[in-house]
Amino acid sequence: MKADIITIGDEILIGQIVDTNSARIATLLGDAGVTIRRKYSIGDRREEILDAVGNSLSLCDITIITGGLGPTKDDITKKVLAELFNSELVRDEETYSRVERMMAARGIEFNELNQSQALVPACCTVLPNLKGTAPGMWFERDGHVVISLPGVPFEMEGLMESEVIPRIRSRFSLAAVVHKTAITFGMAESMMAAHIAEWEEQLPPHLRLAYLPSPSQLRLRLSAYEVEKGVAESEIEREFEKLMPLLGDHFVGWEEETVQSAVAKMLIARGETLSAAESCTGGTISAKFTAMSGASEYYWGGVVSYDNSVKENVLGVSRHNLETYGAVSEQVAREMAEGVRRLCGTTYGIATTGIAGPTGGTPEKPVGTVWMAVATPEKTIAKVVCHGKVRAVNIERAASAAINMLRLELLKNQA
Amino acid sequence: MKADIITIGDEILIGQIVDTNSARIATLLGDAGVTIRRKYSIGDRREEILDAVGNSLSLCDITIITGGLGPTKDDITKKVLAELFNSELVRDEETYSRVERMMAARGIEFNELNQSQALVPACCTVLPNLKGTAPGMWFERDGHVVISLPGVPFEMEGLMESEVIPRIRSRFSLAAVVHKTAITFGMAESMMAAHIAEWEEQLPPHLRLAYLPSPSQLRLRLSAYEVEKGVAESEIEREFEKLMPLLGDHFVGWEEETVQSAVAKMLIARGETLSAAESCTGGTISAKFTAMSGASEYYWGGVVSYDNSVKENVLGVSRHNLETYGAVSEQVAREMAEGVRRLCGTTYGIATTGIAGPTGGTPEKPVGTVWMAVATPEKTIAKVVCHGKVRAVNIERAASAAINMLRLELLKNQA
Repeated sequence: MKADIITIGDEILIGQIVDTNSARIATLLGDAGVTIRRKYSIGDRREEILDAVGNSLSLCDITIITGGLGPTKDDITKKVLAELFNSELVRDEETYSRVERMMAARGIEFNELNQSQALVPACCTVLPNLKGTAPGMWFERDGHVVISLPGVPFEMEGLMESEVIPRIRSRFSLAAVVHKTAITFGMAESMMAAHIAEWEEQLPPHLRLAYLPSPSQLRLRLSAYEVEKGVAESEIEREFEKLMPLLGDHFVGWEEETVQSAVAKMLIARGETLSAAESCTGGTISAKFTAMSGASEYYWGGVVSYDNSVKENVLGVSRHNLETYGAVSEQVAREMAEGVRRLCGTTYGIATTGIAGPTGGTPEKPVGTVWMAVATPEKTIAKVVCHGKVRAVNIERAASAAINMLRLELLKNQA
Repeated sequence: MKADIITIGDEILIGQIVDTNSARIATLLGDAGVTIRRKYSIGDRREEILDAVGNSLSLCDITIITGGLGPTKDDITKKVLAELFNSELVRDEETYSRVERMMAARGIEFNELNQSQALVPACCTVLPNLKGTAPGMWFERDGHVVISLPGVPFEMEGLMESEVIPRIRSRFSLAAVVHKTAITFGMAESMMAAHIAEWEEQLPPHLRLAYLPSPSQLRLRLSAYEVEKGVAESEIEREFEKLMPLLGDHFVGWEEETVQSAVAKMLIARGETLSAAESCTGGTISAKFTAMSGASEYYWGGVVSYDNSVKENVLGVSRHNLETYGAVSEQVAREMAEGVRRLCGTTYGIATTGIAGPTGGTPEKPVGTVWMAVATPEKTIAKVVCHGKVRAVNIERAASAAINMLRLELLKNQA
């Protein structure tokens, strides 16, 4: 079963935005056992859309299109698809009333443009978009399927998960593809590859290993293609069991686990609470925890102590330490973690202070130097890391590394 | 002058990596006056490469290919290009000795695989890659140009800047492509489109308008293709001048401006400072400011008061208000903004308290309800918004909306 992905929009074509949709769609299709033949990005132009979709329709089983479904004039995907499938645009009543309710809830006028979002080619099956105004559309011709989705990433993703993948699974008989992904933290890709080389070499040839690195974790994915599902699953299980002793406490969890979700689970299970004092990570640790629904159960809050006055006056860091050792120091990191723990009255406090860059480095403390600390009811531990030169990457790495320090501490106390 | 961009590699096709190369190449080509017709991503397969490059060659002036130039077996781009151009692979002596020196410097054996990096089709012009082992290659046929570049982003970028763009400029006489983008906040896409419909309709046909919405802003981009650069620039200027009165204070700035960078500029110019008290946005406002280099000049810090005890004990929110009106209320938002301003000793304090969802809503305060407040030296203002159901979007919208409240307040005081 083969699919093409077509992303439509001048903003992708001229490089104004990086296309993340097609990678996400490819991953979801791949997980369902669909092979991607090709991706295209084209502009909002009738001939381009007709040509690309027509070409894909003749060569693939499935064509997934994103973008060009907004209410404004530059969005023409829907009209061109109506033309391609010789169909009239008609109003979909369900979409009409959903958009009407949405606009009312947000206090936005339900004007002609918004109403036009409910117009769809008569021949398509409407895929309800619960997260936005443009519905998804499912077309069929001679056994080929064309699916049109909005370009807004979370709307596209919602539709892929709730509508497109289930419908593809029931419409086509797909060869099983089995993936299982272990999340690790604290070992770089090349080190990990050397560390687990022997295990990798003994893998049976029909199992494929992929290393998926990012600043906040390294994922190891084992995949079996075109196999009997039950057999492949237990085979992958067995291989990961062999791997576990090699990973040790670098292993964080499975699939969508992150250092913060692993910490969250442990804190909830133990009825314990957390707060964070952030300097160089500037709120990123707090944002990572509070991005997860249910954070209020264990995450009580934190202080972003960007200026030294906030470190001193709010967190109670001593001026002596700030002046003697500097804001980026073990002493200050410890006082920050202890300070926020005391201030918020939580079981644990974590802290970061460092030089995110690109400026502000010195020979002794180059850009990327970050001191991290964890205060527990018994003690305070501290650690320094030095990452690279890119500000956003340093912030992301430092936030994850500090959360991981707490994770390792919680694991120890568990044992 | 039209170009296609073809990225080659299974890792892009299956969604394992997000393709950032093609956006970067598109930007560089666009700046040079080359219009992008289409982008493709294809796998490391001979027929796919022959088909895509052959097709592009027949329809475009320029075809830029990245990827598939590594030394391992799965990289076949070079061989397929040699086949397409009926050319033998020969050793390029300059590349050979550069790779040899590179390997020596890094203490890596100069083995057969590394030596093969110096093999290139005899008919191409070699573009020296000073940052890696795979050279760029420039092919010509019947006035069409095909350029092959390594897929490693910084190697690709180095070659684009030092070799490809200068050669394209001298090889073709290029028409200018001019883009200019206005950043707006506070008006949804459909409302904006209705609001500026008359202006949009009077635009000359060679200027194209695009609406680029996201939870944190709405961008309006005007583009002129195949024009005389100076003329188009001043024409676009004039059209935006006409638009400005319609945008009013919804206008945030140009190009890469954001509500937070606009606020940052005003605060720096006025020598004023800011702190934030965040409940539902959980650190996102702080993270947005501290993501920008130089934030320490005006951003002193903040408190993430996720739990009510932190609102009360750290920010000084009265228990009476928390119990009488609830944590998501105008009264609490005001006390939070005033509390953090006092605590951090800053000129301004901003605050958010709301229900990010997906659970926790009530009929009176549905999911997405967010109270925001701004405390200034003179007064405190508050406002409520109600967004949608998606947690991540609510957090992003509320953070940007609260920052925008401060932006509007700063603009008023400026006038």
